[in-house]
Amino acid sequence: MQRFHRIGILGKPDDPEVAETITRIADHLARSGRTVTLGSDVVEIAADLPRLPRGELAEQMDLIIVVGGDGTLLHAARSLAEHDVPILGVNRGRLGFLVDVSPGNLSEIDAVLAGELIEDSRMLLDAEIQAEGEIVSRGTALNDVVLHKWNTARMIEFDIYVDGELLNSHRSDGLIISTPTGSTAYAMAGGGPIMHPDVNAIALVPICPHTLSIRPLVLSADSTVEITVSPDAFEHIRLSCDGQEDLGMVNGGRIVIRKRPHKVMLVHPPQYRYFEILRAKLRWGDTNLG
Amino acid sequence: MQRFHRIGILGKPDDPEVAETITRIADHLARSGRTVTLGSDVVEIAADLPRLPRGELAEQMDLIIVVGGDGTLLHAARSLAEHDVPILGVNRGRLGFLVDVSPGNLSEIDAVLAGELIEDSRMLLDAEIQAEGEIVSRGTALNDVVLHKWNTARMIEFDIYVDGELLNSHRSDGLIISTPTGSTAYAMAGGGPIMHPDVNAIALVPICPHTLSIRPLVLSADSTVEITVSPDAFEHIRLSCDGQEDLGMVNGGRIVIRKRPHKVMLVHPPQYRYFEILRAKLRWGDTNLG
Amino acid sequence: MQRFHRIGILGKPDDPEVAETITRIADHLARSGRTVTLGSDVVEIAADLPRLPRGELAEQMDLIIVVGGDGTLLHAARSLAEHDVPILGVNRGRLGFLVDVSPGNLSEIDAVLAGELIEDSRMLLDAEIQAEGEIVSRGTALNDVVLHKWNTARMIEFDIYVDGELLNSHRSDGLIISTPTGSTAYAMAGGGPIMHPDVNAIALVPICPHTLSIRPLVLSADSTVEITVSPDAFEHIRLSCDGQEDLGMVNGGRIVIRKRPHKVMLVHPPQYRYFEILRAKLRWGDTNLG
Amino acid sequence: MQRFHRIGILGKPDDPEVAETITRIADHLARSGRTVTLGSDVVEIAADLPRLPRGELAEQMDLIIVVGGDGTLLHAARSLAEHDVPILGVNRGRLGFLVDVSPGNLSEIDAVLAGELIEDSRMLLDAEIQAEGEIVSRGTALNDVVLHKWNTARMIEFDIYVDGELLNSHRSDGLIISTPTGSTAYAMAGGGPIMHPDVNAIALVPICPHTLSIRPLVLSADSTVEITVSPDAFEHIRLSCDGQEDLGMVNGGRIVIRKRPHKVMLVHPPQYRYFEILRAKLRWGDTNLG
Repeated sequence: MQRFHRIGILGKPDDPEVAETITRIADHLARSGRTVTLGSDVVEIAADLPRLPRGELAEQMDLIIVVGGDGTLLHAARSLAEHDVPILGVNRGRLGFLVDVSPGNLSEIDAVLAGELIEDSRMLLDAEIQAEGEIVSRGTALNDVVLHKWNTARMIEFDIYVDGELLNSHRSDGLIISTPTGSTAYAMAGGGPIMHPDVNAIALVPICPHTLSIRPLVLSADSTVEITVSPDAFEHIRLSCDGQEDLGMVNGGRIVIRKRPHKVMLVHPPQYRYFEILRAKLRWGDTNLG
Repeated sequence: MQRFHRIGILGKPDDPEVAETITRIADHLARSGRTVTLGSDVVEIAADLPRLPRGELAEQMDLIIVVGGDGTLLHAARSLAEHDVPILGVNRGRLGFLVDVSPGNLSEIDAVLAGELIEDSRMLLDAEIQAEGEIVSRGTALNDVVLHKWNTARMIEFDIYVDGELLNSHRSDGLIISTPTGSTAYAMAGGGPIMHPDVNAIALVPICPHTLSIRPLVLSADSTVEITVSPDAFEHIRLSCDGQEDLGMVNGGRIVIRKRPHKVMLVHPPQYRYFEILRAKLRWGDTNLG
Repeated sequence: MQRFHRIGILGKPDDPEVAETITRIADHLARSGRTVTLGSDVVEIAADLPRLPRGELAEQMDLIIVVGGDGTLLHAARSLAEHDVPILGVNRGRLGFLVDVSPGNLSEIDAVLAGELIEDSRMLLDAEIQAEGEIVSRGTALNDVVLHKWNTARMIEFDIYVDGELLNSHRSDGLIISTPTGSTAYAMAGGGPIMHPDVNAIALVPICPHTLSIRPLVLSADSTVEITVSPDAFEHIRLSCDGQEDLGMVNGGRIVIRKRPHKVMLVHPPQYRYFEILRAKLRWGDTNLG
Repeated sequence: MQRFHRIGILGKPDDPEVAETITRIADHLARSGRTVTLGSDVVEIAADLPRLPRGELAEQMDLIIVVGGDGTLLHAARSLAEHDVPILGVNRGRLGFLVDVSPGNLSEIDAVLAGELIEDSRMLLDAEIQAEGEIVSRGTALNDVVLHKWNTARMIEFDIYVDGELLNSHRSDGLIISTPTGSTAYAMAGGGPIMHPDVNAIALVPICPHTLSIRPLVLSADSTVEITVSPDAFEHIRLSCDGQEDLGMVNGGRIVIRKRPHKVMLVHPPQYRYFEILRAKLRWGDTNLG
């Protein structure tokens, strides 16, 4: 009995390159006797394959292949976060941090399907906005939850609490709460450290802080981070998950961020090495200085 | 039966302020019926108290009070690392990250002695230099193990491996391998993040890297970090622990850094808050910009 | 004949502390036989003094005293930029980079009025948005012109040209074009260098750039900086001067930033030292690390 | 009458690749009727060409071609600093900031020889160590003068004065005083800004400062920078020019750094663009983040 028999495919909508790659992968999988089902929002392809909404896909499939960029995989991972189905990321020709399989490399996919794979579970964050004891809105993030200023050229002010204790009162352009996965994304642009996916930690990375000795802070991922915003400031603050999903903010709202109890499972071909991807993506082989 | 009856005191040698504080604490402890023993290298004080070398002190005492700056406590912690005795840090008037009790505050000490305390176990690092399968030299660090250039104005080159896999080939002025405790010390001057003591992580912070996309890297503290240096470079490299202890480097030597199996136990008065010390030491209340 | 006989006063509106300081200064000036005129938007004070709009004030006065914070002085300097009148900044008790005279120190003001002063001319920037050969909007800045993202959680993209040559294509949260005066303000939060007011330079400081090797860039202040934005991005971009004044952006608009031909003249008491203010504001006397 | 008739060639000694390039260039120049003279320390090549020491070469030649890396050109520029001869940098296959002509591109050299060139004058720094009114040692730098710690794992302390006024008391691993040319070299590894060669400025870039609000400082290049070191610290401090030349430090010595009155003249082919080299060397075309 094969571990991976029923394969779902998700991909960036409206991208002809993605259509081409999905067609090739679907053909290949069909030839090896596997059943292939597409997500309902996948780009139109020639083959007449069954389609299912993401939720049903996640429930019924043994593996989801995501074709696109890191952003496509972030979106897929969040939408599959309720389920236990593993995810394999295939890029469109340009290596990603998360979509590490190149589209031409069907042997890498074969290896994974044959069970020669590296399992790589990644933490997610849950973000809630609470007001008067109710949850007003919520979201999930694989990379980061970002508090950022909105509709203003000025800095914003807010208080950060960790497990109920005041960390500090913050005056800045915002704050990135990042998972290890997100540490090579926006958090890095903000000056945050790289965090290996094995570390059970989150990073709080300030954006343009007005206090010069404020630095990125690495906390245990078991910490609860709460942020309160003064009543007159809430209109100039937004909360977003992975830069893709916005949570509505309300006056008097309190932001609560916690590690999600369940992780998402990425799978990689056996030759995958995290540090190798870092070196390739960040061009660590180069010496820049004269 | 008191938990803390036999109290050892260590302190910065040759510091009259420290002598004054030790005298006051020793008097106070004696009045409460406790026995007080000084470390043999403690500064001369008026009272004629028994003295013991650090090792015996650590074995026979229930608590060691260290009087001085953070540097004094680092030194004490390393020398007591073989033992299980808890350490209380008393400063000389200027708050430290580790010596958080102020010298005038005997009630804070009383609270700790009465068992109203916060236990705060801190990870240590073991560093070894190996050559031809033998350990050439070794050291222990509470803050950091630092690989730094020596006798040269030029950058140094070395390869870093994490759990046997290449991280990168490094061209820089050096590398700081920091514990959470060390993250507010030298690693911070190098641009590293603050790491909460509860995080089971170490940070690799490059010093003036010649590749601009190299960033501080946070790894699981269960990782083994190995560094190899090219034969012609070893004369221009030194390894130090906490900036206080130097390890001899040899040609062909391989540096191995691991978390020490045992932690050191700091104790604090009940009102101790880690974030409060960060805010005070780093002056997070100030907004610097115009 | 006195150089400074007719004194204008500007100040933060609606601030009772400012009212109190202005009253004291105005009384003092009147006693020394000088004429005092207030800006029309100055906070209500007890004394019945003549008032004039800023433009007329600038034309008719020998000196303008500005009472408030650095933000108040920024606003005043921009509104007086057409004129040659010198400006003296008085703070409300908290030292600013620009408002360096403390409110209680009337002898410092007396020294300046007696001609014992340090002249400190500061460059301004002119920013224009051009479309189809026309100037759509324009603004002036003493600190900085900031291109920032607006109403989006995502990065923005734009091309920067210096004196007609491409510098780079930028993917970031924005760009700060800063004068030396602005180098200790928002540009510093973005990681820019401090620039001494005597340097004829501007700095381009990227905000959270997605290319890790992008660094702040110091250019001759005689350079013309042009920025073009792709048509679909213009709705998510705003341009602001000193964080106080917003320029309307239009589709197809081209941003042009140049040094303003005329400088603004700040005057300081004779004991003013630029480095002393840096040390005080940035707390350079402290050593933060443990 | 040709502007560039007598051509001198300098190059990295002991480098066979450099020998090959010099041979090709010398042949090419001879065919066009120019006289070619080698520096006396140039690597052995097949052709029997006259050789002269650097000083005489600089006096008698119309142009000096330097073949090697940026380090080779730095060395050449310092040794020719007394003279007015222009310098053309040819690399060994890898683009440098200063050696921008590729070795295979003889047409670029021809263009320069025909007078189609870009003149690019670069500031140099003079560094002196003075003691008891005497100059103990001196050096010249095209990139940077670096004060760095020597043979110690600890930070060093020194006071910096600018035009006779205290800037600050510094606790760090050292200080880089950089020209615009040096701003893309070691200063950049220390977090300094890029400075365009047209800016008449120098940057003071601290190395691992123990005060977190200390930032790189850009000063007018007409400033005189003086550094004093406490008597017990001088053994742990060294001063180097361009990382290539060391100045002897003495107890009680005072370091004085000034812009050199004369500049060095680099020449480039007509298609040279400074920003293009920045983009290529720093790989600004890449977006690193996920």
